Amino acid sequence: MRLIIPAAGAALLAACAASPGGPNAAAWRPSPVFDAPDPSKIVQSAPAEAWRAVDPDDLLVMELKEGGRIVIELAPDFAPVHVANVKAFARGGWWNGASIYRVQDNYVAQWGNGDAKTALPAGIVKTPPAEYDRPLAGLKIRPLGSPDSYAPMVGHAGGWPVGYDPQAGRAWLTHCYGFVGVGRDLAPDTGTGGELYAVIGHAPRALDLNIALIGRVVEGMPLLSARPRGTGALGFYEDAKQNIPIARIRLASDMPAAERPRYEAMRTDSPAFAQYALGRANRGGDFFKRPAGGVDICNAAVPVRKAAP
Amino acid sequence: MRLIIPAAGAALLAACAASPGGPNAAAWRPSPVFDAPDPSKIVQSAPAEAWRAVDPDDLLVMELKEGGRIVIELAPDFAPVHVANVKAFARGGWWNGASIYRVQDNYVAQWGNGDAKTALPAGIVKTPPAEYDRPLAGLKIRPLGSPDSYAPMVGHAGGWPVGYDPQAGRAWLTHCYGFVGVGRDLAPDTGTGGELYAVIGHAPRALDLNIALIGRVVEGMPLLSARPRGTGALGFYEDAKQNIPIARIRLASDMPAAERPRYEAMRTDSPAFAQYALGRANRGGDFFKRPAGGVDICNAAVPVRKAAP
Repeated sequence: MRLIIPAAGAALLAACAASPGGPNAAAWRPSPVFDAPDPSKIVQSAPAEAWRAVDPDDLLVMELKEGGRIVIELAPDFAPVHVANVKAFARGGWWNGASIYRVQDNYVAQWGNGDAKTALPAGIVKTPPAEYDRPLAGLKIRPLGSPDSYAPMVGHAGGWPVGYDPQAGRAWLTHCYGFVGVGRDLAPDTGTGGELYAVIGHAPRALDLNIALIGRVVEGMPLLSARPRGTGALGFYEDAKQNIPIARIRLASDMPAAERPRYEAMRTDSPAFAQYALGRANRGGDFFKRPAGGVDICNAAVPVRKAAP
Repeated sequence: MRLIIPAAGAALLAACAASPGGPNAAAWRPSPVFDAPDPSKIVQSAPAEAWRAVDPDDLLVMELKEGGRIVIELAPDFAPVHVANVKAFARGGWWNGASIYRVQDNYVAQWGNGDAKTALPAGIVKTPPAEYDRPLAGLKIRPLGSPDSYAPMVGHAGGWPVGYDPQAGRAWLTHCYGFVGVGRDLAPDTGTGGELYAVIGHAPRALDLNIALIGRVVEGMPLLSARPRGTGALGFYEDAKQNIPIARIRLASDMPAAERPRYEAMRTDSPAFAQYALGRANRGGDFFKRPAGGVDICNAAVPVRKAAP
């Protein structure tokens, strides 16, 4: 059994600096760690202090007419105006009777009121700022330690995956599986938050820095991903009868206490998370023969679990 | 309108060499290209010489009992023994009456005969070698030009996405959306090819170099991805009645000529592909505001199109 390198070492391992080199120059050499911790066992055994309760005011609960619910953790630290809009839409009952009307294979499922002409609820900012990134300052980032294809650096901050640019001093959420973004028209409108989508396929990271992400699905992904794909352009359902009706969308904090879903997310500055990330970059156990020595930000999803009521 | 840099320049742009650096050292700086070509327009306008016909002997056609078909392009240059097994299974009628019995959200859909005790068709190699990688020599690689989280280098060769290690002289297919691999038990069995899976979620690249990939789905992904998720461990259907019956699986070359699906894949050494890759790394048009300047190998899928009969 080989030594498990400490987490700080793991973060340093793959650091890779811009430098000239021909297209066949090896960019970096993964340093696989054998016998790294099993990520699922780390999650199971992580101590209570490795977890934070998700604020019920940051949990959006979407109930479908057919039954079933989708729960989304909101990210007010990354898109505060859009998240405030989403809360105002929920509190104003805006989506009661809305539907999922677009499901594009390997891309997104999208929902909202479509072309509804109803008056916006009180408090909606009609043209929010382009909250596609935010200052790096104020975030306590744990670098992931693997190169990324899109961002100068990636890591985790406050329980969220981020891309960041130390030189520019900016950070942003990444379009990973289950992430929820704000549908928008072309410039300069950023979308109000009334039309939302969730990623149901390979991370479309080209959308990073181009769209406001407002959170991630923590429960109910199959209710979005296991749907017939729309046959219209961009995966829109061609017949409105195919739309999947939404009963209502509420904040957990507005639900009776006994009905509220409760979730905890792993603290990304905890030792448990460092071990988890090491394990995700170096899969072991009986099945894996060659640990990768690296992992992309979307395959190092922050563990989220249901909390006791 | 800014100058569109030539493809060789794009490949060089993001080359990044191993070098010491703290976890906050910027690893590389994307060099976005504005007004890069629109990838879909490149595909539409690519000249005939940018395409190669897929050999009907390398097209596996899986017909479902409920109707609909899934077409898989095989990759004999990467896993020759496993691919030969797959062809022998198809020709031996092995999968006629098999089923899709596992659908795990954000991971894979898997099919085969499960625990069938039928005798293997003639010609099956029962314990194929571990065709998880192959010599780099013999592949004409076009480097993608963006850093990768798993492999020292990534690029395309002969119409396929590859990770590669110039120092070790090895290359391998990458577990992207739609890629098809050979289910296997624990070591040292690599699986015969009788049980196959396709990736239906974010690329599980940790499987690279740990499993034999035998090809990619070129038609019918929603028939695999838009399925109820299995509620058993690992997404297996708990009730056999949930299994999705397969009518038969044949090679296109064994079908009557008039019924054969015909496909063409873009030549990855063509100028059109270089422009396509540049466009995938730098999304533009009216929607995208900030081109990424980079792309991961699974978001630069090789264009494949139906060919005229």
